[in-house]
Amino acid sequence: MLGMRRIKLTIEYDGTDFKGWQVQNESTRTVQGAIENALRIVCGQPVRIAGAGRTDAGVHARGQVASLALPDDVRVPIGDLCAALNGNCPGDVSVVSAEEVPEEFHAQRSATGKIYSYSLLNRREPAALLRRTHWQMRYPQDVKKLREAAVFLVGTHDFTSFATKLAETQAQRLEDGKCELETVRTIQRIDWIQGSAGVLKMEIEGSGFLYQMVRTIVGTLVEVGRGARQPEWVAQVLAAKDRRAAGPTAPPVGLCLERVFYP
Amino acid sequence: MLGMRRIKLTIEYDGTDFKGWQVQNESTRTVQGAIENALRIVCGQPVRIAGAGRTDAGVHARGQVASLALPDDVRVPIGDLCAALNGNCPGDVSVVSAEEVPEEFHAQRSATGKIYSYSLLNRREPAALLRRTHWQMRYPQDVKKLREAAVFLVGTHDFTSFATKLAETQAQRLEDGKCELETVRTIQRIDWIQGSAGVLKMEIEGSGFLYQMVRTIVGTLVEVGRGARQPEWVAQVLAAKDRRAAGPTAPPVGLCLERVFYP
Repeated sequence: MLGMRRIKLTIEYDGTDFKGWQVQNESTRTVQGAIENALRIVCGQPVRIAGAGRTDAGVHARGQVASLALPDDVRVPIGDLCAALNGNCPGDVSVVSAEEVPEEFHAQRSATGKIYSYSLLNRREPAALLRRTHWQMRYPQDVKKLREAAVFLVGTHDFTSFATKLAETQAQRLEDGKCELETVRTIQRIDWIQGSAGVLKMEIEGSGFLYQMVRTIVGTLVEVGRGARQPEWVAQVLAAKDRRAAGPTAPPVGLCLERVFYP
Repeated sequence: MLGMRRIKLTIEYDGTDFKGWQVQNESTRTVQGAIENALRIVCGQPVRIAGAGRTDAGVHARGQVASLALPDDVRVPIGDLCAALNGNCPGDVSVVSAEEVPEEFHAQRSATGKIYSYSLLNRREPAALLRRTHWQMRYPQDVKKLREAAVFLVGTHDFTSFATKLAETQAQRLEDGKCELETVRTIQRIDWIQGSAGVLKMEIEGSGFLYQMVRTIVGTLVEVGRGARQPEWVAQVLAAKDRRAAGPTAPPVGLCLERVFYP
């Protein structure tokens, strides 16, 4: 394995027609599967990749990161790898960059933080043009209240109330070699940006996120935004450390993994 | 036909999976066909519509307008028509509004102006998320030059150089009862708006547009934007009154009918 090159890929995808990131079986269309298929063609042999985050079915990415080890008998220059992979990827996934990184780099384990966005559309009639990337809601949202409610989540907290299927999350973490169920996370910022024609976008930056945490945060904040709850309710939800205290999980359609940070 | 109600529909669609606006035959998926199908279900009888503009395959709309006559035995209240139609339309087309208008209203013949947008993406790697609505180009565009070049087109001019298939346009116009091939149009404004991450958007407002005129304008302006021509070249193209003098026709993917004006 001498001379094996460690590669970091940055990947964009429209998750609408994928059953999520992670390879499941031959007949299921996944992003990981699409890229590993392109790698197999380009490298002439199977090459596995590890993603920074296993996005669910319907979730998008502008800056997903994956790491892989390029076997030393693969002659493709790094400068050509991106174009070679894109030539073998379907239109709804694109390798934005490919770069050589130190041997110890791992897309998931080396990550120090992530930015996700969540896009909403406030409109009564169905949205034909934004239907693949925006969660449409018919009831109006008050941005001021969304912002007030979000303040309670910024900082370091136990986010148990905002995680679904904690047992599964734990199982996944055990595979990574960590033995403790750790539900404390730090959120650096939550910004709500008002667009035109009913578009609203949340940007959230954090050290890491529990399973479906961003979608549960959105599903909780919009309860405040539509006036069903007061902003202070979010502090109670956080303190309860019980998923049943929070709002429903927002649908995957609005979620996008924007960026992954490394040291 | 006494009591027949004249209706104006405003329609949004993602044109990617449609073979254009105009009904062709049973097996071809068109926007007009999708809406007439919904009308047939809602009204219990065939109802034809007339669109303000016959957009080509792959072209989108946020504000297409169609007019129709609702037979007097159709009992659907106007307030429910929009929701009833949307309940019978596929996800990539949406009726945004339905309103009763005076009997003489006709979506195409009553129109006094239109706004189109054209979206570009300047990036080397394929765009997974914007691939359905943006024309991607690998060579960089100079917005300042795009704006300088556009100035030559604003105002009232003979746009013969920017129209394809003039004979067909003429034939269509003859059907409308007009006998002259009129190639003079007035453009009120052309704005180039720079977005983030390589996105560029042109907005063009005019009294009317010849066949493929907006796409030919874009295909011509980007020749200046990428530095292959000087802005003044556009004045020569206009003066030539010859389609061969202009740049290539930009692809349909970036084009969107934003709005239609009526007196």
